[in-house]
Amino acid sequence: MNEFEFIQNAAGRTVPTTVNGKAQTPYQGVGGFEPSGIKQAPPIRTCRDYPGDGDKRVPDLETALKKCGLRDGMTISSHHHLRNGDKVALKALEAAGELGVKDLMWFPSASFPCHEPVIDLMDQGVVHHIEGSMNGPLGRYTSEGKMRGLGVLRSHGGRWQAIQDGDVHIDIAVIAAPTADAFGNANGSHGPSACGSLGFALADSIYADHVIVVTDNLVPFPCLPWQIQGNNVDFVVEVDSIGDPSKIVSGTTQITKSPDRLLIAEYVARFVRDAGIMREGFSFQAGAGGIALAFAQYLKEMMVDAGVKARFVRGGSTQYLVEMLEQGLTDFILDGQTFDLAAVESIASNPHHVPTSPFTSYNYHGKGNFASMVDAVVLGATEVDVNFNGNVNTHSDGALLHGIGGWQNCLFSPCTILAVPAVRDRIPVLVDEVTTLTGPGELIDVVVTERGIAINPRREDLIDAVEGSSLPIRPIEEIKAEVEEIIGGKPQKPKLTDRPVAVIKWVDGTVLDTVWQLGE
Amino acid sequence: MNEFEFIQNAAGRTVPTTVNGKAQTPYQGVGGFEPSGIKQAPPIRTCRDYPGDGDKRVPDLETALKKCGLRDGMTISSHHHLRNGDKVALKALEAAGELGVKDLMWFPSASFPCHEPVIDLMDQGVVHHIEGSMNGPLGRYTSEGKMRGLGVLRSHGGRWQAIQDGDVHIDIAVIAAPTADAFGNANGSHGPSACGSLGFALADSIYADHVIVVTDNLVPFPCLPWQIQGNNVDFVVEVDSIGDPSKIVSGTTQITKSPDRLLIAEYVARFVRDAGIMREGFSFQAGAGGIALAFAQYLKEMMVDAGVKARFVRGGSTQYLVEMLEQGLTDFILDGQTFDLAAVESIASNPHHVPTSPFTSYNYHGKGNFASMVDAVVLGATEVDVNFNGNVNTHSDGALLHGIGGWQNCLFSPCTILAVPAVRDRIPVLVDEVTTLTGPGELIDVVVTERGIAINPRREDLIDAVEGSSLPIRPIEEIKAEVEEIIGGKPQKPKLTDRPVAVIKWVDGTVLDTVWQLGE
Repeated sequence: MNEFEFIQNAAGRTVPTTVNGKAQTPYQGVGGFEPSGIKQAPPIRTCRDYPGDGDKRVPDLETALKKCGLRDGMTISSHHHLRNGDKVALKALEAAGELGVKDLMWFPSASFPCHEPVIDLMDQGVVHHIEGSMNGPLGRYTSEGKMRGLGVLRSHGGRWQAIQDGDVHIDIAVIAAPTADAFGNANGSHGPSACGSLGFALADSIYADHVIVVTDNLVPFPCLPWQIQGNNVDFVVEVDSIGDPSKIVSGTTQITKSPDRLLIAEYVARFVRDAGIMREGFSFQAGAGGIALAFAQYLKEMMVDAGVKARFVRGGSTQYLVEMLEQGLTDFILDGQTFDLAAVESIASNPHHVPTSPFTSYNYHGKGNFASMVDAVVLGATEVDVNFNGNVNTHSDGALLHGIGGWQNCLFSPCTILAVPAVRDRIPVLVDEVTTLTGPGELIDVVVTERGIAINPRREDLIDAVEGSSLPIRPIEEIKAEVEEIIGGKPQKPKLTDRPVAVIKWVDGTVLDTVWQLGE
Repeated sequence: MNEFEFIQNAAGRTVPTTVNGKAQTPYQGVGGFEPSGIKQAPPIRTCRDYPGDGDKRVPDLETALKKCGLRDGMTISSHHHLRNGDKVALKALEAAGELGVKDLMWFPSASFPCHEPVIDLMDQGVVHHIEGSMNGPLGRYTSEGKMRGLGVLRSHGGRWQAIQDGDVHIDIAVIAAPTADAFGNANGSHGPSACGSLGFALADSIYADHVIVVTDNLVPFPCLPWQIQGNNVDFVVEVDSIGDPSKIVSGTTQITKSPDRLLIAEYVARFVRDAGIMREGFSFQAGAGGIALAFAQYLKEMMVDAGVKARFVRGGSTQYLVEMLEQGLTDFILDGQTFDLAAVESIASNPHHVPTSPFTSYNYHGKGNFASMVDAVVLGATEVDVNFNGNVNTHSDGALLHGIGGWQNCLFSPCTILAVPAVRDRIPVLVDEVTTLTGPGELIDVVVTERGIAINPRREDLIDAVEGSSLPIRPIEEIKAEVEEIIGGKPQKPKLTDRPVAVIKWVDGTVLDTVWQLGE
C-alpha cells in the first residue's frame, strides 16, 4: 500500500507530490523556483487584551497552553538552543498530552537524543509527526516507518522560509529562555542556563499565532538584550530549570586529535590561503566539529604569519573564534549558534560578538542573506559523490540520523569546501551517487580529504588559483578509486523500500529528495 | 461644496466617514475598538534576484526609484531622524518629480520646516497629499485648505499600527542612514550625520514593498549595530550628505530659564515624589522641552536625596538623562529619539542606552507595549479643557501646526502629567473645550501649571496620595477661572469652516477628531 504519487525533480530524484496533505513543488534547480504571493501574517492583536503593567506571567505551561487555545491538530514549535540539555520542549508536549489533545505537529528547529521520549507521545497519538531535524533516535524511528506522517527536514534558513512564506503555520511557539522579564523580552546570553543566541526562535516569535516564553531566570523589565521581543509574546512561565547547563554548552570545544583529520584541516587552511581567499578583510565560516576547529587554528596561524585580518568570521562560535576576536584577527564574530562557555561569555559581553538569526544569515526568500557573502565555508558530509553532490542526512545504510542545520544555506558561499575523511569506519565517504541528496554538486566547490583535494571542474577559477601550489590537487574519481582499492570495492547499496518516510527540502521550500523507509 | 459625510464619534466629535477614499472607523472610546484580521504582509522575495556579494548600491536616487517601479499614485515614506537638517526626503520627492510621476502620497514620520518646498511639489501635482505630522508651514498650508486630500495625523505608535495593519501600504520607503553598508544594514548612531536611533524607519523597512537606504557614510559589511536590517533593503544609494549635522541634533539641550516654567517643573517633580511614584526601581518619561528637562533635573536631585534609583527612563534622550545613567541613577535609558550630542555619543557607546522603536514602545496593536509600563510621563499640550482633554495639534486660532509624536501613546502611563503654563502669549491654555481633541481626558491624570496642580477627579488614588502635601492642588475650573479673570475673559473661538482638512487618528486607527479649514 502506497498512498503517494511521485515525480522526478530537476535533480533527477523521485519525490512525493504531496507531503502531509499539502501539495509540494519539486526542486527546480538552484535559483529555478520563483516564489509568489505575500509573507505569512499573524493576527492583529491589541494592547487592551494584555496587562497594562506588562506582567504576562501565568502559573505553569498547562495554563499557558490552555490560554493559547490548544486543541487537536495544532502545530507546536520549539528550539534547540539548549541542545541535549533541553527540558522545555518535552515538558510542553507532555503538558499538551496531559490536557488530552491529539495529533499535534511538533516543529522543532532541531531535536536531540534528550527528546527520545517524544516517541512515546507519537505512539500515544499526542504527536502526529515531526517536521524538523531528527537526529539520533527520532531519526531511526522515522527511518523504520513508525511515524505517522512524513518527516520534513529543512535547513535553518529553510525553516525561516517555511514559516515566513506560510508553508508552516505555527499555532503555539514555546521558547525556552535563559533570561526573560515578565513582559516576555528574552535572551540566551545570560542566566544559569545561558546558551548564547536565541536566533532560531526569532521567526516563531514573529509569525506564530501564540508565543509562550519559559524561563528559569526572571529579571525585572527590561530584560536586555531582547533577542526575543516581549511585544510578540503572549505568556511567560517561570520554571525551576529550563535545562541541564552541562549539556547546553560544552565546557570547552575540542580540536580533533586524529592525524588524518588534522591533515585534512591543514589542507583546507592551505587551500584557503593559496587560492588567495585569505586576504585582508576576508571572511570565513567553520563549524564546531573537530576538523573545522583544527582548520580555524591552522588558518589563524597563517593569518598571523601573513599579517592578515578578517572582517568577520561566522560561527558556530567557540573559544577558538573568540580568541581570534580578542587577538584582533577579526573585526566581528557573526554568531549563529554558541557552542562553548568561552563563546557564551563572549557573546554576553563583547559588542563585536554579534548574535545573528536565520533571517539575516540564511533565509533564501529574503532580499539577500549573509551566507553568500562569506568568502569561504568549511562543512562536513556523510557522503559526497563524483558529481560533488553532498549528503548530510543519511548514513550509507540509508538511516536518517542527522538534520541539515545551516549546511544547505552555507553552500551559497563563493567557496564551499567539504572537509571529509575519504573513509569513515571503513566505509568510503566518496561514492558514485549520494544515498540522499542534501546539496547539489554545482554549489560544492572543493572536497578535501586526507588523500587529496578535489576541485569541482566547474570552478576553473579555483583550479587556476592553486596551480603551482604544493597542494595535492586530484580528480575526485581518482581519490575515490584509491579508497575503493584499499577497502576492497564500493560500499554496499543500502536496503530501502519504496515507501517515503521523510523529505529533504531545498532552501526555497521545494522538495529536493526523499528519505525511504529502511528495508529488512 | 462638501463631498464628505460625517458621523459623531464616541468622544462627541464630528468626523468624516471616508478619508482619502478609504472608509474609516470612528473613535469608539479607549479600548473600545476590537481589531480583526491579519497584519500587513510584504511580497515574498528571493535571494536569486539580489546580488550574491551583497552589494546593492545603485548610482543615485533616481535609479533606485526607477528600479523600485515608481509610478503615479504610489506612497513614498521617509523619516524625521534628521529633523530640520534632513536633506533626503525632499531629494527623493524631487527626484520622483523629475521622473515625471504625479499624485504621490508622502508618508513621513514627521515633517519639518526644511520640508517647506514640498508645497511646490503639491502645487505641481507631484505630491497629492501628506499623511504624517505637518509641523509649521506644511500644517498652515493644510489648514488653509490648499492640499488635495486630507492630512492624516497619527502618533508614532499609530503610524506603526497603520503600517502593520495595512491601513497604509508603503510602496517605497526611503531611509536616510547616517551609517550603512552596501547590503543595506544601517544605523543612526555613527557617522558625520549621526542622529541616534533609526526606530521610526523600522516599520517601513519591514512592511514596505521596496526599501531604499541613502547614506553619506558607507562602511564595509557588516554595519553594526544593524538598526535597519539589510535583509529588508532593496537598494543602497551613496550621497555626499544626508543632512546638516547642526540641525540634526542640538549641540546641547537647554533647560527653561522662565521662572514660571521652572516652577511648573518643580511642582511636577514634587508631585511625582510626594505621590509615591518616585520609589526604588520606578520609571519615567519626559521629553526634550524646556519644562521637561527642568523637571528631570529637579527629580534627579530628589532621587539623590532619597537614595532612589530608577529601573529605566524613557527618552527623548538628552545630556540630562545621559548624566543620570552615568551617575547610576537609572539602570537603562530606553530611547525613542536622540536629541543632543551627548545622547548621540551615549547611544553609540553605552549598552545600557538602548534604542527602541514604536513597535516596542508605542504600537497599540501589539501584545502590550512599553508605554503603559512607564510609572509617570510628563507631556505638554497647546490646550487642556476642564474635562482634562488635551490638544497638541492646533493652536487656539485653529491652525494645524504640530504633529502628535508619541504624545497619545504615552497617555497609557498609570500617571500622565501635562505640564503646561496656564497662559501662553497671553492666551489661556485651560479652556472649556479643546479646539482639537488629541487625547481623551480619561487618560490624563494631572495638569500642572504655575498656578496650581489639578488632579483628574477619576484618580482618587492620586488625590489621596498627595493629601496633606504642601503642593497647590486645586480644581482645574478654579485655575482656569483665575486665568480668565486676569486675562479678561475666555479666549476667542477660532474661525473655522465646515470643510475638513485633516483628521486626528487615535492609537487604534479610529478617527478621533477633525481639523477644519481656517475661516477668513
